Amino acid sequence: MSQSTLSPTGNQTQTYDYGVVILRIVNLRELTTPGAVVDLDRLERNAAWMTHRAKKLGVCLRPHVKTHKCVEAAKLQTAGQTKRLTVSTLAEAQEFATAGFDDITYAVPLSPKAVPECARLTRTVKRFNVIVDHPVAVDALEAYAHTHDLRFSVFLKVDCGLHRAGVDPDSPEAVTLAGRLHRSSRMNFRGILTHAGQSYSCRNRSEAANVAAHERDTMVTFAAKLRGEGLTVAEISIGSTPTITAVDRLPGISEIRPGNYLFFDAFQTAIGSCVLEDVAFSVLTTVVGAYPDAQRLVVDAGALALSKDPGPTHVDPDCGFGVVVTEHDCRPVPGLRVTSLSQEHGVLHSDGPLDPAWRPGTRFRIVPNHSCLAAACHDRYHVVRGTEVVDKWRPVRGW
Amino acid sequence: MSQSTLSPTGNQTQTYDYGVVILRIVNLRELTTPGAVVDLDRLERNAAWMTHRAKKLGVCLRPHVKTHKCVEAAKLQTAGQTKRLTVSTLAEAQEFATAGFDDITYAVPLSPKAVPECARLTRTVKRFNVIVDHPVAVDALEAYAHTHDLRFSVFLKVDCGLHRAGVDPDSPEAVTLAGRLHRSSRMNFRGILTHAGQSYSCRNRSEAANVAAHERDTMVTFAAKLRGEGLTVAEISIGSTPTITAVDRLPGISEIRPGNYLFFDAFQTAIGSCVLEDVAFSVLTTVVGAYPDAQRLVVDAGALALSKDPGPTHVDPDCGFGVVVTEHDCRPVPGLRVTSLSQEHGVLHSDGPLDPAWRPGTRFRIVPNHSCLAAACHDRYHVVRGTEVVDKWRPVRGW
Repeated sequence: MSQSTLSPTGNQTQTYDYGVVILRIVNLRELTTPGAVVDLDRLERNAAWMTHRAKKLGVCLRPHVKTHKCVEAAKLQTAGQTKRLTVSTLAEAQEFATAGFDDITYAVPLSPKAVPECARLTRTVKRFNVIVDHPVAVDALEAYAHTHDLRFSVFLKVDCGLHRAGVDPDSPEAVTLAGRLHRSSRMNFRGILTHAGQSYSCRNRSEAANVAAHERDTMVTFAAKLRGEGLTVAEISIGSTPTITAVDRLPGISEIRPGNYLFFDAFQTAIGSCVLEDVAFSVLTTVVGAYPDAQRLVVDAGALALSKDPGPTHVDPDCGFGVVVTEHDCRPVPGLRVTSLSQEHGVLHSDGPLDPAWRPGTRFRIVPNHSCLAAACHDRYHVVRGTEVVDKWRPVRGW
Repeated sequence: MSQSTLSPTGNQTQTYDYGVVILRIVNLRELTTPGAVVDLDRLERNAAWMTHRAKKLGVCLRPHVKTHKCVEAAKLQTAGQTKRLTVSTLAEAQEFATAGFDDITYAVPLSPKAVPECARLTRTVKRFNVIVDHPVAVDALEAYAHTHDLRFSVFLKVDCGLHRAGVDPDSPEAVTLAGRLHRSSRMNFRGILTHAGQSYSCRNRSEAANVAAHERDTMVTFAAKLRGEGLTVAEISIGSTPTITAVDRLPGISEIRPGNYLFFDAFQTAIGSCVLEDVAFSVLTTVVGAYPDAQRLVVDAGALALSKDPGPTHVDPDCGFGVVVTEHDCRPVPGLRVTSLSQEHGVLHSDGPLDPAWRPGTRFRIVPNHSCLAAACHDRYHVVRGTEVVDKWRPVRGW
């Protein structure tokens, strides 16, 4: 994706187009701000760690790509394979299908209007899985499949406690809908799928382990109930980064779908999924205002560079909008907090007197609260090893 | 910008590229979701209203384009002229300079690294104004201007109570910095500029009128002080949508820079800047999940379509993440609130039982809390008159 060349010194350089000026970038310090930075060493480590973890837990890894939305990261996340993925938009599905990924789960409840595009993807890749939790969505799939002579690969979405989407596994309607999927000649009923997003309300890894156990037990119990009714439940898919990080064993589960772990973020550090040194995504920023009397700095990373996710306020009410770290080696800057964000201004307050070295031009990185939302603010990521810029990745945007 | 053609029936149609399928869109109901919708009738009315208001107040209007970031909207906002504008990024500055706007104020404090690009813009348009509030930024401007033989057009940024950026007008440093700008052979000192963003903490128009009076008085008093020191203060620039909406008179002020008013949003309705029928921006969305037992719907507009601005919680702690309105005529849907947002899911709760007509496929629009942030989630706006899609605008993104 990048326009990489070898520089005269043998360094890999990147060509950036800023207005009419073409610059050759070799080091982080030459990047303009605000800008998204991906630490490749950390990202590779996170990818390998989850691959190893899935193997140890005896489950398939179907990583979610919604956090980064770019092919280069997905290839690292799948250990070089272009196979199993989870996506959150049809634009992602199209992008990754084009890149050769051939077993894709579109993991949001289906809009009836999306059915034709899902049919096209079903014909394009080896397996394209959709999820449903409502008879109206099944009606739409069956009607289209009948008219166009195809079969959809379908998971039943289950609510295991997040109370966002999914059938209630204790309800008779859940069994009825599963039975309908199982019997339909237009459906290839793959199994059941859930996301224990309530794990984001946990305060530590021990609480997340409890949510993980509940997620696993709910799904295994529900599968047993369906099997007791004579239904084939080939796959049980679960996953969120906090639960998969915390869980000890996953008997009965066939696949996991974590996504955020590849980047991690300030939220995940606060609830114990990782430490700050694991976070592979940050936003490079420059001080544009310094107000010593108010112990305040203004930086050029505002809500459009960091998003406006309030973060883990249940763990730390003063968490602010991210963690300020040093530009070159990502060490925390103690006492400096991102207290407010407007569109293009980030306001930092210092607990003590401002360091006189902090003035317009000083650069930091900010580890955002929620890397999925912050990464989506950027149309390219500057990929670094240490402070050397080694690549430029372009995520897919929109729907 | 759009690929408009006349349809056989004489309707203007729009060509949209969804994957490999090309559709001709003539009506709102044919759009895929989530999508940004701009109501052209309302936008034109808001534009004309502010143009009239500036005239009545006896001030120049230098509208901020950061809310919409597209040339078509800016032309309506400037009554067809391509002259005076305010921008929040250098990418906007470049876009609008290319479109012929020739008097542009870059209204965020200057990063020293941005100086070369500001110099290029200074040479490109008739007047390119930067703002400063720190000696380091002035050092950077002077050094560059000296080496490259040019003069920068500069405003001194003043803090009138927001406590984000700007010099304290009561401080001796403020007068010293203004004096330096006034005397510098490399600066064309235009005057003083402020933004009373604390108006967003107001609960109604009466409170905003008080903030507006304070904004005006602070600036007029500070200008008098500088003039008393022998400095020429040609211009006094103020503005935010809440203050300009509420203010009765602006003696001594030369220009105003509101921006949000062109779209307005749920926040502005809550604090009394406008009524819901004035809001020209909304996000079209589809129900993808319906859970009657929980009185809950899930729609396909999540944090990546609406942004995650918490909204006017100081006026209404239960405001949620926007106002749900009907798809075709934007009437409020009472009792239906956007209670949470994750990346691609919006969760709506109903105060009463769910209307049985609400099921997967039902469409609404959501008026976001903060249109500046929500609009930035989209790479195109569907422009409508009533329910007819009449244009497609592409905003500029990034920095």
